Amino acid sequence: MTNNSFEANARDNKTRAYDDCWLRLDGIKDSSFQKNYRRCLESVYCKADTRLAKTALNELLSGLTRLTGSSPKVVDDPESSCIILSILAFDKEIDSALATNEIAKLQPEGFLIKAVKDNKGSKIYITAKTDKGLLYGVFRFLLYLDQQKEIGKLHLLENPKNPIRMINQWDNLDGSIERGYAGRSIFYQNNILTTDMARVKYYARMLASVGINAIAINNVNAHKEETRLIADKIHMVKEINDIFRDYGIRVFLSINYASPIDIGGLSSADPLDDEVAKWWVDRVAYIYKNIPDFGGFLVKADSENRPGPFTYNRNHAEGANMLAAALKPYGGLLIWRCFVYNCQQDWRDLTIDRAKAAYENYHYLDGSFADNVILQIKNGPMDFQVREPVSPLIGTMERTNQMLELQITQEYTGQQRHLCYLVPQWKEILDFDTRAKGQGYPVKKLVNGSTFPMKHCGITAVSNIGTDYNWTGHYLAQANLYGYGRLTWDPDLATETITEEWIISTFGPKQELIDTISKMLISSWPIYENYTSPLGIGWMVNPDHHYGPSVDGYEYSKWGTYHRADFKAIGVDRTVAKGTGFTRQYRKDNYLMFENIETCPEELILFFHRLPYTYRLKSGKTIIQHIYDTHFEGVDQAIRLKEQWEKLNGMIDEKRFSHVLDRLKQQIDHAKEWRDVINSYFYRKTGICDIHSRKIY
Amino acid sequence: MTNNSFEANARDNKTRAYDDCWLRLDGIKDSSFQKNYRRCLESVYCKADTRLAKTALNELLSGLTRLTGSSPKVVDDPESSCIILSILAFDKEIDSALATNEIAKLQPEGFLIKAVKDNKGSKIYITAKTDKGLLYGVFRFLLYLDQQKEIGKLHLLENPKNPIRMINQWDNLDGSIERGYAGRSIFYQNNILTTDMARVKYYARMLASVGINAIAINNVNAHKEETRLIADKIHMVKEINDIFRDYGIRVFLSINYASPIDIGGLSSADPLDDEVAKWWVDRVAYIYKNIPDFGGFLVKADSENRPGPFTYNRNHAEGANMLAAALKPYGGLLIWRCFVYNCQQDWRDLTIDRAKAAYENYHYLDGSFADNVILQIKNGPMDFQVREPVSPLIGTMERTNQMLELQITQEYTGQQRHLCYLVPQWKEILDFDTRAKGQGYPVKKLVNGSTFPMKHCGITAVSNIGTDYNWTGHYLAQANLYGYGRLTWDPDLATETITEEWIISTFGPKQELIDTISKMLISSWPIYENYTSPLGIGWMVNPDHHYGPSVDGYEYSKWGTYHRADFKAIGVDRTVAKGTGFTRQYRKDNYLMFENIETCPEELILFFHRLPYTYRLKSGKTIIQHIYDTHFEGVDQAIRLKEQWEKLNGMIDEKRFSHVLDRLKQQIDHAKEWRDVINSYFYRKTGICDIHSRKIY
Repeated sequence: MTNNSFEANARDNKTRAYDDCWLRLDGIKDSSFQKNYRRCLESVYCKADTRLAKTALNELLSGLTRLTGSSPKVVDDPESSCIILSILAFDKEIDSALATNEIAKLQPEGFLIKAVKDNKGSKIYITAKTDKGLLYGVFRFLLYLDQQKEIGKLHLLENPKNPIRMINQWDNLDGSIERGYAGRSIFYQNNILTTDMARVKYYARMLASVGINAIAINNVNAHKEETRLIADKIHMVKEINDIFRDYGIRVFLSINYASPIDIGGLSSADPLDDEVAKWWVDRVAYIYKNIPDFGGFLVKADSENRPGPFTYNRNHAEGANMLAAALKPYGGLLIWRCFVYNCQQDWRDLTIDRAKAAYENYHYLDGSFADNVILQIKNGPMDFQVREPVSPLIGTMERTNQMLELQITQEYTGQQRHLCYLVPQWKEILDFDTRAKGQGYPVKKLVNGSTFPMKHCGITAVSNIGTDYNWTGHYLAQANLYGYGRLTWDPDLATETITEEWIISTFGPKQELIDTISKMLISSWPIYENYTSPLGIGWMVNPDHHYGPSVDGYEYSKWGTYHRADFKAIGVDRTVAKGTGFTRQYRKDNYLMFENIETCPEELILFFHRLPYTYRLKSGKTIIQHIYDTHFEGVDQAIRLKEQWEKLNGMIDEKRFSHVLDRLKQQIDHAKEWRDVINSYFYRKTGICDIHSRKIY
Repeated sequence: MTNNSFEANARDNKTRAYDDCWLRLDGIKDSSFQKNYRRCLESVYCKADTRLAKTALNELLSGLTRLTGSSPKVVDDPESSCIILSILAFDKEIDSALATNEIAKLQPEGFLIKAVKDNKGSKIYITAKTDKGLLYGVFRFLLYLDQQKEIGKLHLLENPKNPIRMINQWDNLDGSIERGYAGRSIFYQNNILTTDMARVKYYARMLASVGINAIAINNVNAHKEETRLIADKIHMVKEINDIFRDYGIRVFLSINYASPIDIGGLSSADPLDDEVAKWWVDRVAYIYKNIPDFGGFLVKADSENRPGPFTYNRNHAEGANMLAAALKPYGGLLIWRCFVYNCQQDWRDLTIDRAKAAYENYHYLDGSFADNVILQIKNGPMDFQVREPVSPLIGTMERTNQMLELQITQEYTGQQRHLCYLVPQWKEILDFDTRAKGQGYPVKKLVNGSTFPMKHCGITAVSNIGTDYNWTGHYLAQANLYGYGRLTWDPDLATETITEEWIISTFGPKQELIDTISKMLISSWPIYENYTSPLGIGWMVNPDHHYGPSVDGYEYSKWGTYHRADFKAIGVDRTVAKGTGFTRQYRKDNYLMFENIETCPEELILFFHRLPYTYRLKSGKTIIQHIYDTHFEGVDQAIRLKEQWEKLNGMIDEKRFSHVLDRLKQQIDHAKEWRDVINSYFYRKTGICDIHSRKIY
């Protein structure tokens, strides 16, 4: 089994400097259980021989070896095999063992895992219509086994609920990562590829194991060196694509809209200029000549000082469609980010509201985009704050391909020094009812294309990984990457289910571990919100790096990010009645809900309304007292996180135990900083005392 | 005259990418005047032949060529020469033409320039006791001529009033400059010397022309590459020293206190460890072997995360004396910065006062330092703010060599985008009466060693130059470098005198130019103060880069920089009676002056006292109204600066005219930003309206 020994051996390879995350597959400590597994899983039959099918087989073999402690045999006779790995319509006899109605339910990326009893005993079929589906089936099977569940009655039929399940790397070629908190890029250093492409392969495995099928491999802010990826540095893309291809992941590039000028020697990048269009056609041809299965482009245009069609008085449909046309013959996609707003705003100007920007820039273009263009829309109207309403673009564009953009990397949520598990936040977003056609149209049903027909759609997110041995800086932040992948596959999965899966795969199946870590993870976002940003305010962070409190940090800035706090009130009024009218961008029911202070969700009340500090919330507390209380409580909760973790001492290996403990200690210190700065700021501004007379500076 | 044609020709050399500043020597446009000059200055006699004397002769020849439009002859017979350049005691006959009592007054770096009539007509003697004095005499003579003054009765005897007149470059080897606002380093790029050492030579000329005699050529924060300057990169220092030597400027290096560990392979940098001391002895021997006239070290230790003796529980006398001992045999000096404070302060802790740090760290060590150690003391107790009191260390240490540290680069004063002429600020500092031995002991008499005897003392400052064609970013910021040099030579010079000299040398002698630019320069610091930081508060700037307003930018930080503004009061109480007791660090008369709110200078009142916004200043205005008024006025004044400049259109070449105009426009915009942020902040916090109902946001 020389082919398959790589992964099994790799664990013992002292030179590997990184953690196996949820693919460690070492959860089974019970030897009788393991023995039973070994017996039922001792042989594999697989005749499919595409590259992806080979990946699937190799993953299965090495995964089973790790799980059972013994390498399965690969057998030539399906009759004598415990496991049948097959692509449908390849071997009719094998197909016939499965129910036709089930097979009919399978979509191209779906899989069926089924234990079938025949006269010779029990067999496990892992089958799919494509080799990609087969790979997902294998990973699902392995992670299922890792949960130590019964396999005798195994019966899983799954199709991914989103066509595109994507990751955005904000990696720069120099090796830095924009908003990266886990070391340097695993892809690049010094403008070339790193010497450790094995790590990139491992990352591809991790992503595929949770169903990710697309990746943009460089920062949306594409600068000089990155622009060369579509020219003389194409070999770098090719090398990365060769790795991801084997895991069913399509590779995309973030491009510089001004490439025709910057590397093409043209004087313009006007999308309606024939010469420019021709340049892109040639460029795309060049890329596909090198990489026939290249995914397409991701574009950040006219945003935060990046070039774009606005320079030439063209709208974004004109800007995008020109590129889409170049990609179209090859099946390439053009993903266009809607994060476009005025980043040179005068803070004195009360008439502009950045929250309105995405809708204003894109809504009127609904129906104007080519069918291989996808709009990538950030979950909220601002920028990945701790708490934001859902973007009003989602649910109001009916004839445009759309993709939801989330942020796994914790830019505004503690930068992987604080514990902040984002699955609960994402669930809230995905479940938010857009009222697109009345009640019952949550975001997840918009971006999967089931509400309004879309040719391409799905979910994407900014990655949180880097060269840190544990990939994500904070060890527990791995759960965010895992959870993100699982949610893109199935947004209906319960937070608790995802959380438990991850904990077992990572720390094993001990109930106390599951209970404690699950509780810690699921409470962590509300805790972070408590000691940081109250009631939907946002932006109370230090400029640029976005870590730590600075209440006025973005208040007098050009970024359109204001709370307008004075001695008596705080918040921007975004109502139609008295404010910027942002609320009107939503479907009517949501507009009325946010517009009306009585029905506006309180956790967002200062996002939509400007209120005096003495306004009483439904809890009976004034806003100022709510600020004080949540900030004191948040710190107490952070302290309890550490106490919970300490109880796990001895149940987790020392390295991981003390790593997490150290981060939790840092979190407490920094939570106190947040508490004291926020409370002091508002006390100093309002002169209103805490009714409990706690220490405010 | 091949030797001397270099400078004269250089002006026409299109390849020179930089401005001649005050050494352009092209002020004489009046042709009859020029003709007269030419006649009186047509020949030079000089027999001195040291390198410095040769520099002096060459500078004289090329300078006269530029001034008169004709190259003087070098003659062998003093009798037939118009100008006699001589070092005293070299030629008795020449000496005898000068009065003995005058010669007696000359100190080693001084010079005598005298027009002497004999039977053959008038001769000009430029004479000194050393070749260095001769060089200063030549530059003084040239700049005197450039002012188009009469030469018939020329009679100048000058000695510098400060022994050390130094410049600190905060240049890093990678070519960046810490707090540099005029491009990159003229010395370094990519960790080697730049390819344009001619520019370094020109800088040496500029510095020597205003009397500078020492320079530290790298940033006080010496990191990895800079540490190598005392090891395998010594050749870089040697090359720079070869240039500065010819202009009488001693070269110093900023060193890394942890060098014995970082490059020496030792496990400690403990100053009392024999092995460490031995390492430095060897290192210093190595440096002097390469550079026999090396100046010595400048050290920033135990400051802002730099290593130092505190690591080993040694005080700073122990830390400095060890290095001084190594330098002593070669006549080297050890300059030790007193900018030492706790930069990890908890902002909640009201018991610590950063202003007290320098005194607390050094005053008790008075008399403990070796006689070749000099303490370098920043002018104020904080850090080059727009307005600070003078450091209480100056005037209270009686048995320690001291040097005043100023900052020419405009870190907190507009970063050479705003016009802020600092000579008036420096004059105030130099003239501040320390009361060291009663009335009449201004700072300038402390740091020149005339109040308490010092073996080494003087003034140093952080340079403001870089690779920008005009050296200083803002063209008019050249005046700060010029003015600084002149003040180190003679702190008694009037601001108006220095300013006029610089204007004439730079823009010519037209009276309207002199009047307008002089008025602009001299009013600029108070204007900048008006629209930025009121009443001695300081630190209301954006963190890190220090440009632009952020009232709370340093409020909740670790840097010890707080205004503690709340809804009713602002300022830190530094009195003995109710505050941190900082006032007590001054001599008694000053202590009482600052302690008492009635006698405390109002421009510093919020530095020393915490006061309610409703406190009435002597003007009758409340503090809050004073804040509003000065900020509105400051902007109006900035607008007037531009209007004044615009009147000079046509009197100045277009390039310089429009450059300065552009900066002045930027200044107005940015002054408005300052005004509106500061006023809005205080209005939002206090709720107190402007009595004139002007627009506050």
